[in-house]
Amino acid sequence: MRNIRLTIEYDGTNYEGWQLQTRKRAKTIQAAIERILKKVLREKIKLIASGRTDSGVHAKAQVANFRTNSKISLRKLQWALNCLLPSDIAIIKIEEASLDFHSCFDAKSKLYSYTILNRSFRSALMRDRVYFYPYSLNVGVMQKAARALLGKHDFSSFQASGRKAKSALRTVKKIKVLRSGCFIRIDIEADGFLYNMVRNIAGTLLEIGRGRLEVRDMKRILRSRNRQLAGPTLPAEGLMLIKVNY
Amino acid sequence: MRNIRLTIEYDGTNYEGWQLQTRKRAKTIQAAIERILKKVLREKIKLIASGRTDSGVHAKAQVANFRTNSKISLRKLQWALNCLLPSDIAIIKIEEASLDFHSCFDAKSKLYSYTILNRSFRSALMRDRVYFYPYSLNVGVMQKAARALLGKHDFSSFQASGRKAKSALRTVKKIKVLRSGCFIRIDIEADGFLYNMVRNIAGTLLEIGRGRLEVRDMKRILRSRNRQLAGPTLPAEGLMLIKVNY
Repeated sequence: MRNIRLTIEYDGTNYEGWQLQTRKRAKTIQAAIERILKKVLREKIKLIASGRTDSGVHAKAQVANFRTNSKISLRKLQWALNCLLPSDIAIIKIEEASLDFHSCFDAKSKLYSYTILNRSFRSALMRDRVYFYPYSLNVGVMQKAARALLGKHDFSSFQASGRKAKSALRTVKKIKVLRSGCFIRIDIEADGFLYNMVRNIAGTLLEIGRGRLEVRDMKRILRSRNRQLAGPTLPAEGLMLIKVNY
Repeated sequence: MRNIRLTIEYDGTNYEGWQLQTRKRAKTIQAAIERILKKVLREKIKLIASGRTDSGVHAKAQVANFRTNSKISLRKLQWALNCLLPSDIAIIKIEEASLDFHSCFDAKSKLYSYTILNRSFRSALMRDRVYFYPYSLNVGVMQKAARALLGKHDFSSFQASGRKAKSALRTVKKIKVLRSGCFIRIDIEADGFLYNMVRNIAGTLLEIGRGRLEVRDMKRILRSRNRQLAGPTLPAEGLMLIKVNY
């Protein structure tokens, strides 16, 4: 028995996310990869990811693992997968993992990036990778407000309503708001994320950047544990899973 | 009467190029923009571009102009166009031009970029923007060979067979081959380009980079004026029109 670890890049635009629990026949990234693994390895394969990503969310380096009895070489397997997978999914790394490695439980932290295109006209080439916001944003106050989220907190205020985790305690290890030309990137590294947490934090930072909320409101919103007080959920296309740390 | 100049960004993936002379009802970028201009200005509009781009070729800043009797403000027109145009075409600049400005005849030079993804596995996120080449390439010899193309030459060797221009004399003002991580970018600025010229030069540089042709062959191929001796035409998706200089 082997445990194989994949690092996967994907464009989430045309998928209903990594995995859907509700519908069996949904077009998901997990299902697309499992189907090809079955074809190549001639075994039914159960793929475990570091976590799910939503419909339209991208990944530069999602990590997933699966067990197999196959003796195929890693090189050959990567080659076969990249030949057979749809062009919007690519296996960028493949490794032998210890038998007890679990992509989800063993993940120490994950880094997500949310990108806002901040200029007066939209982009044709970047349209599926950024959220277009044409009005003025003050990155300085966004960066200041973001600092309030550092550390271990109950992030209920930034959790999608109706998708409650057992505990909303998470530790944000790094959070940065950076402008580079007309792009504003919000990087968040945490030991785990609640459903829609990054997109809700990004939406709240946007409200602060445009002046509808103040820097000090971030602390108030965080403490309130009330989703109603935070900003809107920004669209999926701006979100990218950058890295999973083990 | 006014003459309006547009700077246009587009993702060429889903189009049959800027313009097709052969079929009236082709899905072209020019037709898409003319249709929306007609809707907004309530006049039939003839759009003139700096030059055509092929099916699948992208533009960061194509330039085109048209004449109109409309009194609409530039601001309003840009806003309306970006609202109504498909998401893979964006108007990134709009200016009043002198009545005699002609996007094609007045262009002094154009800058094209050809991008090769040079690593052992393909990319999901960049799939429509790069040509994927998984084998080793020597960028140093590509750069050396490229220098032979600088200046005024007859570029018949790099012209698509069956698409002969009256004269194949063109002046290459700059040519650079740069590696940045796993991307190799070939930048070519010239006063004009023959049909498929950049993609044929890129294909010839690739043959040199992989060792199937030598640095000195570039001069020989150029002098031969024989398309048969040059390398293959690389695929459209790696090509981007970066800038038009006036």
